[in-house]
Amino acid sequence: MRRHPLEEPSNTEEEILAATYRALIAHGYAGLTVKRIGEEFEKSPSLIYHHYEDKDDLVLACLEFMLDEYAEQLTGEAIPDPKRHLAGMFAWLLTAGKRADDAAFLSLLVDLRSQAVHDTEYRAHFSRSDAVFREHMTDMLQRGSADGTLDIENPEGTAEVLFTLALGTIVRGATAADDGWPHRLRTAIDRYLTA
Amino acid sequence: MRRHPLEEPSNTEEEILAATYRALIAHGYAGLTVKRIGEEFEKSPSLIYHHYEDKDDLVLACLEFMLDEYAEQLTGEAIPDPKRHLAGMFAWLLTAGKRADDAAFLSLLVDLRSQAVHDTEYRAHFSRSDAVFREHMTDMLQRGSADGTLDIENPEGTAEVLFTLALGTIVRGATAADDGWPHRLRTAIDRYLTA
Repeated sequence: MRRHPLEEPSNTEEEILAATYRALIAHGYAGLTVKRIGEEFEKSPSLIYHHYEDKDDLVLACLEFMLDEYAEQLTGEAIPDPKRHLAGMFAWLLTAGKRADDAAFLSLLVDLRSQAVHDTEYRAHFSRSDAVFREHMTDMLQRGSADGTLDIENPEGTAEVLFTLALGTIVRGATAADDGWPHRLRTAIDRYLTA
Repeated sequence: MRRHPLEEPSNTEEEILAATYRALIAHGYAGLTVKRIGEEFEKSPSLIYHHYEDKDDLVLACLEFMLDEYAEQLTGEAIPDPKRHLAGMFAWLLTAGKRADDAAFLSLLVDLRSQAVHDTEYRAHFSRSDAVFREHMTDMLQRGSADGTLDIENPEGTAEVLFTLALGTIVRGATAADDGWPHRLRTAIDRYLTA
């Protein structure tokens, strides 16, 4: 999740999706309109209407594009030390509140994910997204288990626990104040990972 | 979370909040209007306007009322076997998708929680709500640790992990399809709790 896949759009299609992303960050899902996406877009807004029907069409295309990019990044990623990798991932998530861009990105994910409560297309997207990240974790735990780096009996179940914990962490970060919980949670996760 | 605090309203104020809850379940947050709350209310809608300014005022009062009721239930709850209690809680959450009323309740919580991404009043509510449930878990783990039922070094941190995992479970349940994850997650959690 470090490099943002839409920071450097390389064609008109990607420029439209990058404009959608910027408009989402600026206005949130509820405040998003195709007009506002047009304002973030440097070419003629008519190009947007030519490719997309409505704002959900644009948001879903933006989510799918980012997910495909992450999936590709994850596939090529070499992870020599899974415990350290997981500790780093939780450290990144639990300190995101201190970095405006990362906090805005994670808050947007929570905002968009909540659309899946009522909308089957968002639900299908986040089901696929969860499977991508969960399978990446499972793969990492299975390799670590096979080469003796990790001692776990149930990599699939452990991946579900870690993924669900990461999702809960993202949601808390986007929706609740820091009363010390990120520090307490990080300490506990670090203990489990070193145990 | 078993008995719904607004099932049997005992005065006009509670009847208004119960109508708010029913309207939220029927229409979701985005589809909620004060008019629709009035349609669920058996007395004159003017009573609603007399007590509340707008729909958020009603939703927040509804959330606060339910939280106070849960907080009271939790305080009086005797928990002789914390591991079994936690296993039961996750079993309840992970099978909620099969029970329409429970699924609707948890989906509503996710829908409303997402308002906290942009709204400081919802953020304040869910911060308080998280603290209530987290402290209940901490208390349960500390008692279990003190009387020898549990062997844990860091009850506060463990409570943060369990609470965050429960929240992640609720959010997944409300926003992603069941591709086998609830079963895999439950198996893994049961293993940890019996280990």
